[in-house]
Amino acid sequence: MKYYAQVKIGLKKGILNPEATTIQKALALLEYEVKDTDTLKIIKFELDEDNEEVAYKKVDEMCQRLLCNPVIHDYEIKIISK
Amino acid sequence: MKYYAQVKIGLKKGILNPEATTIQKALALLEYEVKDTDTLKIIKFELDEDNEEVAYKKVDEMCQRLLCNPVIHDYEIKIISK
Repeated sequence: MKYYAQVKIGLKKGILNPEATTIQKALALLEYEVKDTDTLKIIKFELDEDNEEVAYKKVDEMCQRLLCNPVIHDYEIKIISK
Repeated sequence: MKYYAQVKIGLKKGILNPEATTIQKALALLEYEVKDTDTLKIIKFELDEDNEEVAYKKVDEMCQRLLCNPVIHDYEIKIISK
């Protein structure tokens, strides 16, 4: 069955996010006052597995082997059946 | 009032996404067969505005002035009141 996977990747608490800091500073220069800026990345794709559980495990494996750095990243997996 | 804004930024249809292509190829090398890989970015922050409509307009302005490149990016704004 075809599944649609979405992995949301963000930095763990306590890890500095220089990209977010830069965005917040640039917004401040344009006179937009914002707080607690953060950035996340989403990777999405389609995969073909027997069931939702297997699909979830497969995507979790991909995250640990390639998509994320477990030392600095937190990730969240969403599996949607098509 | 305090609002929580989330901007989801992706490439427009037809614009090549080399990052997604690389991820898909790397997954294939590890023997994970996936299709239609795509990547998005989320920028989130807090802002203080009178109402939700004003907050939305302000964030839309930020997208057009700084956060997105309207030539290549599509964006989606979500405003949540805290």
